[in-house]
Amino acid sequence: MGKIFTALVFIGVPLSVIGSLMHWSSILMFIIYCLTIIALASFMGRATESLAIVAGPRIGGLLNATFGNAVELIISIFALKAGLIEVVLASLTGSVLGNLLLVAGLSFFVGGVKYKRQKYNVYDARHNSGLLMFAVIVAFVIPEIFTSSMTEGQTISLSIGISVIMITLYLAALFFKLVTHRGVYQTTDEGGTEEHEVPEWGKVSAVIVLLLATIAVAYISENLVHTFEEVGERFGWSELFIGVIIVAIVGNAAEHASAILMAMKNKLDITVEIAMGSTLQIAMFVAPLLVLISLFFPTAMPLVFTMPELISMATAVLLTIVITNDGETNWFEGITLLAAYFIMGIGFYLL
Amino acid sequence: MGKIFTALVFIGVPLSVIGSLMHWSSILMFIIYCLTIIALASFMGRATESLAIVAGPRIGGLLNATFGNAVELIISIFALKAGLIEVVLASLTGSVLGNLLLVAGLSFFVGGVKYKRQKYNVYDARHNSGLLMFAVIVAFVIPEIFTSSMTEGQTISLSIGISVIMITLYLAALFFKLVTHRGVYQTTDEGGTEEHEVPEWGKVSAVIVLLLATIAVAYISENLVHTFEEVGERFGWSELFIGVIIVAIVGNAAEHASAILMAMKNKLDITVEIAMGSTLQIAMFVAPLLVLISLFFPTAMPLVFTMPELISMATAVLLTIVITNDGETNWFEGITLLAAYFIMGIGFYLL
Amino acid sequence: MGKIFTALVFIGVPLSVIGSLMHWSSILMFIIYCLTIIALASFMGRATESLAIVAGPRIGGLLNATFGNAVELIISIFALKAGLIEVVLASLTGSVLGNLLLVAGLSFFVGGVKYKRQKYNVYDARHNSGLLMFAVIVAFVIPEIFTSSMTEGQTISLSIGISVIMITLYLAALFFKLVTHRGVYQTTDEGGTEEHEVPEWGKVSAVIVLLLATIAVAYISENLVHTFEEVGERFGWSELFIGVIIVAIVGNAAEHASAILMAMKNKLDITVEIAMGSTLQIAMFVAPLLVLISLFFPTAMPLVFTMPELISMATAVLLTIVITNDGETNWFEGITLLAAYFIMGIGFYLL
Repeated sequence: MGKIFTALVFIGVPLSVIGSLMHWSSILMFIIYCLTIIALASFMGRATESLAIVAGPRIGGLLNATFGNAVELIISIFALKAGLIEVVLASLTGSVLGNLLLVAGLSFFVGGVKYKRQKYNVYDARHNSGLLMFAVIVAFVIPEIFTSSMTEGQTISLSIGISVIMITLYLAALFFKLVTHRGVYQTTDEGGTEEHEVPEWGKVSAVIVLLLATIAVAYISENLVHTFEEVGERFGWSELFIGVIIVAIVGNAAEHASAILMAMKNKLDITVEIAMGSTLQIAMFVAPLLVLISLFFPTAMPLVFTMPELISMATAVLLTIVITNDGETNWFEGITLLAAYFIMGIGFYLL
Repeated sequence: MGKIFTALVFIGVPLSVIGSLMHWSSILMFIIYCLTIIALASFMGRATESLAIVAGPRIGGLLNATFGNAVELIISIFALKAGLIEVVLASLTGSVLGNLLLVAGLSFFVGGVKYKRQKYNVYDARHNSGLLMFAVIVAFVIPEIFTSSMTEGQTISLSIGISVIMITLYLAALFFKLVTHRGVYQTTDEGGTEEHEVPEWGKVSAVIVLLLATIAVAYISENLVHTFEEVGERFGWSELFIGVIIVAIVGNAAEHASAILMAMKNKLDITVEIAMGSTLQIAMFVAPLLVLISLFFPTAMPLVFTMPELISMATAVLLTIVITNDGETNWFEGITLLAAYFIMGIGFYLL
Repeated sequence: MGKIFTALVFIGVPLSVIGSLMHWSSILMFIIYCLTIIALASFMGRATESLAIVAGPRIGGLLNATFGNAVELIISIFALKAGLIEVVLASLTGSVLGNLLLVAGLSFFVGGVKYKRQKYNVYDARHNSGLLMFAVIVAFVIPEIFTSSMTEGQTISLSIGISVIMITLYLAALFFKLVTHRGVYQTTDEGGTEEHEVPEWGKVSAVIVLLLATIAVAYISENLVHTFEEVGERFGWSELFIGVIIVAIVGNAAEHASAILMAMKNKLDITVEIAMGSTLQIAMFVAPLLVLISLFFPTAMPLVFTMPELISMATAVLLTIVITNDGETNWFEGITLLAAYFIMGIGFYLL
């Protein structure tokens, strides 16, 4: 897997530069960009992982929590710069749905085919459920309902207020998890789980890889964003569909792969942490951060999703909470989540 | 009880034929039809039960899951044929509300008056909760929100897509329950529970009873459907109210009786299975099947309920999930469900 | 604490009378009224407590359940009399949000800073969760959706029907808790918890205190209600904001203080009981009672909240249920609830 990604990077990056300079067809470039970003994201993930191991659990947790969705963040910033606010909101929606339904669904299904019942830490799942409820059902739903009779200025004020509260609570959640309550809710103290991990790269190499990959992702993202219109027209896809399904999958592909791999190794704790943790990072950190960043661009982004986006996220959260509430899973819970993803996929395709 | 139903069938069926040929008053015929269908439904239930015992647990489970709501299905098909799409959607709503709130409520109350705390298999209840969430909160809510800006053609496309996914998932749920995970989540292995059951009828008799009763139900349903208009006018009931309250109670009366009987015998596992299982069958099998069947009729039925119907079902599901989540019940949980049913009943009556 | 309240009463009541007769500025009077009511509410709470101890657990529970929100009820009746239906609905909303998010949030946070993990009776929490679901998600949501196409008369009919059902269920809940299932769901049988409590006042003194305080609250409430308009204009607060945030905090301040005090003593059972119990009393007893009382006033109050009010309450209930479902808490769950309260506070301020 690593080799394929390495090859993809060393072929994809030059091709991206050449293609964009020589104005190759948008469809071709869209495909090249997407594949290259997926490969680069895997490099960024591995570099962050290496740094996290070197830095110890606390700083490491912080690093993962900040850079875990860096690709998504970078693509979104360039989309914001290009004024594509709808695409940004759609891709945030897509990440939430993708993590909760597609990634968790595939992982539970693939893992469940191999093992009859898979268990994971129910305390962590419930902690995450509370935050999902807060982020999606409270922090995303409230502006939707309240702003319908507000002026644009009030809408932005409310969005800023909520964003600041969300980021604060996200940081508090890290403090809770990494400092005050680290290890308090451990159910499986097998000890052996904490194998002494060896970082793939040293500190300096990791920083250099992270830096170079970030620059490359930024360069490609800027170009990728400008292919959306033509790709949409060619395939009959709305910008909404591109955002919800395509961008979300590209931005999270590397992470998705490792969640499923962990499920196949029966390490469900990690799978659930990736799926729910990544969703929370998107909802409570990336989304509000983008609202605040957008204030420096010509058009500010309110934290107001379209009704279909909001309802999809809200129902996905409720379904996830009910399904993960008991701390164990099986193949059927997996395909239930997948079925929900497909229903929403069809909906967004037809919109 | 059995004797009354036998008498009702042998009086009701001839009266139905004579009355419809001689054009007796709609009100009278409405009452005769309803009572006869209730009695016939009891015969169909007993025939299915007999076949299920003969066929063994797997095929038996499949039979119950397919024919359990046959009466409801037949009435609905004739209503579809008559173009009464609103009545069909309303009676689906009514079945969901009736099973979750009225049946479970009455059973919990009656059982709870006799026993202080009644327990049931919490794994099954949670498995069913996940599916209820999927069926009502995802599969019914999504089309409601997404189709508000869709053309009629797109609405039907989305309805078909969702229906296919729902039926597939329903079959997967049967496969999960009857094949891959049969007995995996048993909490009470008292052994004695599985008394060797003796079928009421032999295979051949059961098939004949099932066949004759089905034909009779079909005949009567076709006529019943045409009395709605006049009955509605006479009593000041809207078609919605007839669908939600009357048709739903008639279609499920036999089943309701046995759920309550089981609660009085402290066999709560069966009560909960009837109430939640029947709801899931309606929502995940009968409703999508009717959508697909409607494609062969002049007007296709979209999977789009009215807002009051949808909200009633969604809140009923949320209430049920919270109340059944702990695997035990008491009389107060029973009347809480009943109170919710009455509130919705008043609402539908006034609409 | 007690001394401050005593001083406040003996200064505040005369000042209230003098100020209202001499037409002091509305802003000044608003502040005097609010502080005096907070102090009087504390007296009423202590008198009720004394009576409850003297009367024994059953009658005592009934007393608490009836007089626990007497101040709120009195203010609301005078607001109804003045035709301020929006303010009444807003203050009911504010009490629900205040109890579930502000009181529980502050208590969990303050208690959690002192103790790493705090536990409480999970049976009681789930019992209350079921009722919250019933009251807010069913009984408040249904009229909102159903009445959008109803006449005013039908809206009032539905409101009356629901109110009668709610009060009946509330009484049934008391009967369940105090009679049929008292002590059935006790988890901690430390025995020592039930210290023999000594009433602060004897029966006669308590009744006199309760009577005098009630009269004083009534007098001040009537005047308080008439300052809202001017206060709103001066501070740029909408009547909605005054109702949701200010009146709700004033009406419940004394209760709030004791909930937080109990959390600091690690008596979380009492904290959760105050927060959830008081919410239920507001939603299932005070609100429907006000609907019925309003029938005697010129304008009847329907049980129809504004969309922002309803969504705030519904999401607060869902968040509470997910967070209290496991029977234990920590400081982070506390600030999650507080964060939700602030988000809604900003929303109501900007509306």
